[in-house]
Amino acid sequence: MVKLSDVNSKLMKAHYAVRGKIVIRAHELETQGKKVIYCNIGNPQALKQRPLTFLRQVLSLVEYPALLDAPETAKLFPADAVKRARMILEKNPTGTGAYTHSAGMPFIRKAVAEFIQRRDGMPADPNRILLTDGASKGVQSALTLLLNKPNDGVMIPIPQYPLYSATLALYGAQQVNYFLDERNRWELNEAELERSIEAAKKNGVNTVAIAVINPGNPTGAVLSRKNIGMVIRFARKHGLAILADEVYQENVYGQGLEFTSFAKVMHELGEKDVTLFSFHSVSKGFLGECGHRGGYLEIRNMSDDVYAEMIKLQSIGLCSNTDGQIVTYLMVEPPKPGDESYELYAKERGAILDDLKAKAEILGRGLNEIEGMHTHIPEGAMYAFVRFDLPHPKGTDPAAMPPDERLKYEAARDNKYCLRLLEETGICVVPGSGFGQQPGTLHFRTTFLPPREDITALVEKMKKFHVSYAEKLKSGV
Amino acid sequence: MVKLSDVNSKLMKAHYAVRGKIVIRAHELETQGKKVIYCNIGNPQALKQRPLTFLRQVLSLVEYPALLDAPETAKLFPADAVKRARMILEKNPTGTGAYTHSAGMPFIRKAVAEFIQRRDGMPADPNRILLTDGASKGVQSALTLLLNKPNDGVMIPIPQYPLYSATLALYGAQQVNYFLDERNRWELNEAELERSIEAAKKNGVNTVAIAVINPGNPTGAVLSRKNIGMVIRFARKHGLAILADEVYQENVYGQGLEFTSFAKVMHELGEKDVTLFSFHSVSKGFLGECGHRGGYLEIRNMSDDVYAEMIKLQSIGLCSNTDGQIVTYLMVEPPKPGDESYELYAKERGAILDDLKAKAEILGRGLNEIEGMHTHIPEGAMYAFVRFDLPHPKGTDPAAMPPDERLKYEAARDNKYCLRLLEETGICVVPGSGFGQQPGTLHFRTTFLPPREDITALVEKMKKFHVSYAEKLKSGV
Repeated sequence: MVKLSDVNSKLMKAHYAVRGKIVIRAHELETQGKKVIYCNIGNPQALKQRPLTFLRQVLSLVEYPALLDAPETAKLFPADAVKRARMILEKNPTGTGAYTHSAGMPFIRKAVAEFIQRRDGMPADPNRILLTDGASKGVQSALTLLLNKPNDGVMIPIPQYPLYSATLALYGAQQVNYFLDERNRWELNEAELERSIEAAKKNGVNTVAIAVINPGNPTGAVLSRKNIGMVIRFARKHGLAILADEVYQENVYGQGLEFTSFAKVMHELGEKDVTLFSFHSVSKGFLGECGHRGGYLEIRNMSDDVYAEMIKLQSIGLCSNTDGQIVTYLMVEPPKPGDESYELYAKERGAILDDLKAKAEILGRGLNEIEGMHTHIPEGAMYAFVRFDLPHPKGTDPAAMPPDERLKYEAARDNKYCLRLLEETGICVVPGSGFGQQPGTLHFRTTFLPPREDITALVEKMKKFHVSYAEKLKSGV
Repeated sequence: MVKLSDVNSKLMKAHYAVRGKIVIRAHELETQGKKVIYCNIGNPQALKQRPLTFLRQVLSLVEYPALLDAPETAKLFPADAVKRARMILEKNPTGTGAYTHSAGMPFIRKAVAEFIQRRDGMPADPNRILLTDGASKGVQSALTLLLNKPNDGVMIPIPQYPLYSATLALYGAQQVNYFLDERNRWELNEAELERSIEAAKKNGVNTVAIAVINPGNPTGAVLSRKNIGMVIRFARKHGLAILADEVYQENVYGQGLEFTSFAKVMHELGEKDVTLFSFHSVSKGFLGECGHRGGYLEIRNMSDDVYAEMIKLQSIGLCSNTDGQIVTYLMVEPPKPGDESYELYAKERGAILDDLKAKAEILGRGLNEIEGMHTHIPEGAMYAFVRFDLPHPKGTDPAAMPPDERLKYEAARDNKYCLRLLEETGICVVPGSGFGQQPGTLHFRTTFLPPREDITALVEKMKKFHVSYAEKLKSGV
């Protein structure tokens, strides 16, 4: 029988806190009948966000094409949804039940290229676009291609989305941390990037790529064009590929802010040498279609022979799922003004984005009013990364601990805090140590996805919990 | 820029012939307007197999639940499809748009356990069942868990389905070949298994598992209970886990033959020590829902702590796609006698399976009539693995070549043959070297999925091609 000591030691080392022990405990509590508010994961439709009507209408028709010819269909579906479904089945006559090309249906890859062109005002090549089962699989494909030797490493932000650390651990590669600047709206800092890569080099690590998440997860920050340009120059200087995780590109709420893609800035800079992988997904934005596992990966500055290896890798898993591909298509090619469905689509989209913007503010402002809690009002994405202060037990001085011991001490503290929060309030958040944090700080990540009326109550509960928890620690109970 | 010399050398070594160079050439020819008959891949709905009506009706309703309450729905959908869709949405109220538990929706895992219990007459544990994006992803998860050190290896059949060789290469693990016995209906031979593991040991390989494909891909063979029992005892003797690829379990055509699962034989033998991973998929059988990427992985004889690592691995990719999960559910829980949809369902299922059985015979018998071609009439799965004879150029004696050189020589020959076949006839098959074959033999794998009327024409074209190709070789043209 396979024993724990037989198991892949790389898998044993991988951690994915977003679905870790606290979430498993939350499932247990729920089974016991306790109400749990899942703020651990960006899963909008699990928190009552409704799917976009047009999108589901088209999916429904494509799954059961017999509907297209039924007289009742005109009463149940708008004409443009029917037209769109017909078009999809014309372009892809084998329907949802057949494997597609390894990279995805050609007409969808073309539509993605046109979407990028409209978004950024520059051409994109369908032959450098791969449809993937969500962005996670795209990131893993890019890392599989790039990581060659055991001392190869990838720079990742701290805090980061733990897909990156987990995948690097799983692939036996080196994680090269660079800290985001919490005091400066979580931007990337050039001196810190240089420190990071230099430290890696001293440790014998060959850094091959840098991952950037924009808008930020878990930070909620939206990067400036200037900051992106700095990263591109840094990558060029050090011969790195860039992994641009841009899955929250539609989730920008901050006044006067807008999403800028790495591809666009590279194009403006005339950058022809840095290989760029950029990732997008149907799971976030205003679609929130997490369950459909759809997304794409666009590559720039890659030769045909290297791209052929990407296609081969994709082909070993055959292809991404067809519904996910179709949702990706509908994301990049939504109803246009004048289409029958446009008004409803725009209304639904607006309501979701307005709601997210309002909730980001309510949550951010509310938490900032709690003594000992600090957060930037999220400018984008779906999360707040909240710093909280706790008194240390008498006689404990973390600053005097060796770095490894300190990390463990602080991870134990934020884990215990989040577990108590769950047990006492039913609120499920993820400890900061799951994303990484500056030594001497404690955080948790919470989404602001619950319905608006629940967010105020949630802030109240957090306040009561935090005050009492800190008080108990202080008095040594 | 990432250069070919930078690319992961393990990826460079991986080959997946089912979607290799010949298939890429086929796509090119098709783009140029040439008619291609894709016999390279088990993709039934790409070759005009129709989806099962009930299954698509339920999917259509689940994707757009507003239909459930519309008065027109009763005219468009049978009552049991509506009832089933309601039930799915009750059991999983977040619908298709939310991430599920990492292992899949609990009610579907329970339904899979009940399916196994009905099939094999023994209990199955929902808490050892994972829903996966097709069987391929399940196989890759099992291998990720099992492969720890670079000298760890897995026994795979030759010929094999190249997912196994490609994944082992990608994971930097050792491929341990055992030959299937072509003269004995492609069964596994105990002496050959012992030879294989002994040879691996001599090369410093630590064999951790054996993969078996039943019904066979590419062989089309259905294993006997006795043969399966032998493999289980062999695995026990050598401390191996078993990977039982049982995706063709519904595809059994041979007179008096039936599918027997590894789980059932293990249960009958009272085997409590050999860890078993068994894989099933919605892509094959009579569903042929390849595009939906659904399937499951059942594990036996695994402790909770090791299983937790499987769950963690699954969680890093979040979850398998929801439509694939639902198709898996409908596969294991089809309409029952008495249900409104039962009659149509049974009729559609029967027609597909009868057709496949008839086509297996037409193809097998037809090819055997060609001089220099030999194949077993496929007893199961969707393929014939066809041996063909070609004269050698004057002065060439492959038997005198070193093994590596001989492998290359023979691979070049079957590749060239299949490429010419494609160019001259439009028939796309996969060279035997993509699956592995005994030295001194040449094969190709073809599906028998094209419509029945096309199969006879296909056999005729192959005959004409083969005779002329062999003739040209003989005369040294």
